[in-house]
Amino acid sequence: MAGPENRRPLPGLLRLIAALLLQGATAGASTSNPGAAGETLFLYEVLELAAVIVLAKLGAEAFERMRQPGVLGELAVGMALSALALAGFAAIESWRSSEVLHIAAEIGLMLLLFEVGLESHLSELLEVGWSALLAAVLGVAAPMVLGYGVTALFFPNEPWYTALFVGGALTATSVGITARVLRDLRKLDTKEARIILGAAVVDDVLGLIVLAVISGLVSSLARGAGGEVSAAMVVGIVLKAALFLLGAIFVGRFVHFNAVRFGARFRVSGVPLVIALSFCFTLSAVAGLIGLAPIVGAFAAGLVLEPGDYQVYQQKGEQPIELLIRPLTTFLTPVFFVLMGLKADLRAFASSNVLVFALVVIVAAILGKQACSLGVLERGVRRAVVGVGMIPRGEVGLIFTSIGAGLSVAGRPVFSADLVSAMIAMVIATTLVTPPLLKRLLGAGEAETA
Amino acid sequence: MAGPENRRPLPGLLRLIAALLLQGATAGASTSNPGAAGETLFLYEVLELAAVIVLAKLGAEAFERMRQPGVLGELAVGMALSALALAGFAAIESWRSSEVLHIAAEIGLMLLLFEVGLESHLSELLEVGWSALLAAVLGVAAPMVLGYGVTALFFPNEPWYTALFVGGALTATSVGITARVLRDLRKLDTKEARIILGAAVVDDVLGLIVLAVISGLVSSLARGAGGEVSAAMVVGIVLKAALFLLGAIFVGRFVHFNAVRFGARFRVSGVPLVIALSFCFTLSAVAGLIGLAPIVGAFAAGLVLEPGDYQVYQQKGEQPIELLIRPLTTFLTPVFFVLMGLKADLRAFASSNVLVFALVVIVAAILGKQACSLGVLERGVRRAVVGVGMIPRGEVGLIFTSIGAGLSVAGRPVFSADLVSAMIAMVIATTLVTPPLLKRLLGAGEAETA
Repeated sequence: MAGPENRRPLPGLLRLIAALLLQGATAGASTSNPGAAGETLFLYEVLELAAVIVLAKLGAEAFERMRQPGVLGELAVGMALSALALAGFAAIESWRSSEVLHIAAEIGLMLLLFEVGLESHLSELLEVGWSALLAAVLGVAAPMVLGYGVTALFFPNEPWYTALFVGGALTATSVGITARVLRDLRKLDTKEARIILGAAVVDDVLGLIVLAVISGLVSSLARGAGGEVSAAMVVGIVLKAALFLLGAIFVGRFVHFNAVRFGARFRVSGVPLVIALSFCFTLSAVAGLIGLAPIVGAFAAGLVLEPGDYQVYQQKGEQPIELLIRPLTTFLTPVFFVLMGLKADLRAFASSNVLVFALVVIVAAILGKQACSLGVLERGVRRAVVGVGMIPRGEVGLIFTSIGAGLSVAGRPVFSADLVSAMIAMVIATTLVTPPLLKRLLGAGEAETA
Repeated sequence: MAGPENRRPLPGLLRLIAALLLQGATAGASTSNPGAAGETLFLYEVLELAAVIVLAKLGAEAFERMRQPGVLGELAVGMALSALALAGFAAIESWRSSEVLHIAAEIGLMLLLFEVGLESHLSELLEVGWSALLAAVLGVAAPMVLGYGVTALFFPNEPWYTALFVGGALTATSVGITARVLRDLRKLDTKEARIILGAAVVDDVLGLIVLAVISGLVSSLARGAGGEVSAAMVVGIVLKAALFLLGAIFVGRFVHFNAVRFGARFRVSGVPLVIALSFCFTLSAVAGLIGLAPIVGAFAAGLVLEPGDYQVYQQKGEQPIELLIRPLTTFLTPVFFVLMGLKADLRAFASSNVLVFALVVIVAAILGKQACSLGVLERGVRRAVVGVGMIPRGEVGLIFTSIGAGLSVAGRPVFSADLVSAMIAMVIATTLVTPPLLKRLLGAGEAETA
């Protein structure tokens, strides 16, 4: 069943795709009809989209087999493509400017945060327990301060908000890899595990609030004089973020609830998906337009919406809302992470300055999360396990980095290409370092890496 | 449960969306930072996307309640927006140039044809029976000739390929409305119904082959001298289309089969959706790049792929492939039909010339399909029922129109805005006229329209 002849056709398919993709770079110039050139460019971008989703899945699979999260594999695929571009494959450059890939990635990111929000419940947030809450708050504050500090020390010429963004990118834990290691070691029902998982839920929300405030602040700067910030501005942003979240929760919930009731009388199919998507897109766009990050709106939309709201549609033969959203995230979200890896400039690591800074940020990220262990109030809990379990950074760190690279103040991006590369290295290193440390701490010394 | 207070919040939401959408038109100009302006424009386009999917669903529901196909409601929403643009709402103009809407519509169209292909089976095509086959062939040929003839007579100055495109747009029956009427009258198990449904399957494929050949021909003209056509060219296009379809069926099936087997060993989830989508996108892009219409590739991809291929993944907890694709088409396909309606220039009907031509095309479309009744070989079949049942045109007619509007020869689009409006009128009229005619013929005279 798994004989070698199964694999034969794949290289053939890849060769065909590669040949077409390499032609893509010259497509824009090869025809004289502007409409036809636009159409040809679109077709090459569709082909690139097909290649990106296939490569992302291959990368995710390779990393899963090494017991690493799939998202690192998608990132690695992007970095490998970036390396190909450096090696002279000019076609890859056209991937970076692809409108189709860009839109797929942005919508995919919104839907990812929407899905995360759907899986979190306001009620769960209110019952995580004091230890988890305190661990989360300390584990957000300490990396924030450390990240700010090391950046300000290392790059004294970078503006203060760049340092703030680095701090922000270090805040949110990506608890997936920890949960997997704990499950493999059958330690998921320990107090340590419950504190880690509870703290990670709070942590996600705190990270997004930090992102809302910081990106709001930088957007205000970008619109204003540039570099000047007043106490009133900070208060204004915090108020705006708070008002938006409250508005999303109360007005949004009311509107959504009534849209669901109104739509329940419809005869056409597809109503729940349209309500959920339009709610997600509307809140994302409103958040972005009032100067917060769009994903803050997407997350708020998911948080407000409870899967149970749609039960009335299941009686009419619709799938549950999570199953309707999942194909969209399966399709679109990996595009974001591949493009993220593609943004990494591998040459940056040739500069010893960037390399050293990446190491410093990695150390700040690891040490910062040890503050979580100070939040543990119970006796009989191994605090070091909580601190180590919180180390991995992932999606939210990458999202911070992506937004930092996209925001400009006075024509200069908040995150330079060097910083993007350093932050990607931080996400990878914190994720790779956690499983062996956790296994050693929990006394399961046997090397299980593939 | 269905009290009037349910409806209150919707106008509020619509007001908010409308206010933001109307601002959208000036978004590009209001900021000085190009990156920020691009991001702001993107956010407005996301908001427009949310508005389009909500409006499309409302339009589909309204038409379903009038016992008309939902797709006409989506088209009507687009035409209503087009009327708003005429009435001075400049913001609607920005919808026409929205990159997000354009890409969503194009991908949605590919996925629609992919889904249609998935639901058709090569084996079914081979067992429709002689009457259905003959009815389909005659019902494609006669409208083609009539459409060509009336256009050539009416617009002697239009190039011959424009007339050919009008003929092509009249070929394919959209059998949904007929099937619904027959079901309502409990006549689905009659010989007439079986011939109609069988012929409609063949008809779809023939329509796409006609589209492949005609659009391939016009693409060659666009690249070449413009207006000149040789017998060698026609033979070349037919060969190319045949080779593509054979290649898709044999090479494509082989590659796909092995990709499914290879992917079955993967541990990550989402493999079947990625294989199906990348297969659809790759064949669509290849079809487009070799000068056929991309949707021909999408349909071929769906035809080659059998839902049963993915059964191995269902044992691993994946949903059946149709359920994975459906949320994508639910989300994206209506965007195509709304944009199609938006392309209709309502002022065209103020010209008596266009109005008369629309009427002539409608008559040609209706009479042309009566040729189907000549294909019925069995005795005891009411031939008029078959002819009338085949009248409605729908998706494929609109797709022909959209491609005709998009293709240019020597800088001039194959379909002018006037022709687009006339073809949309044809699709609407043939659909509206069928149910009452069919009911009268089948002796169920009671008026059942809501």
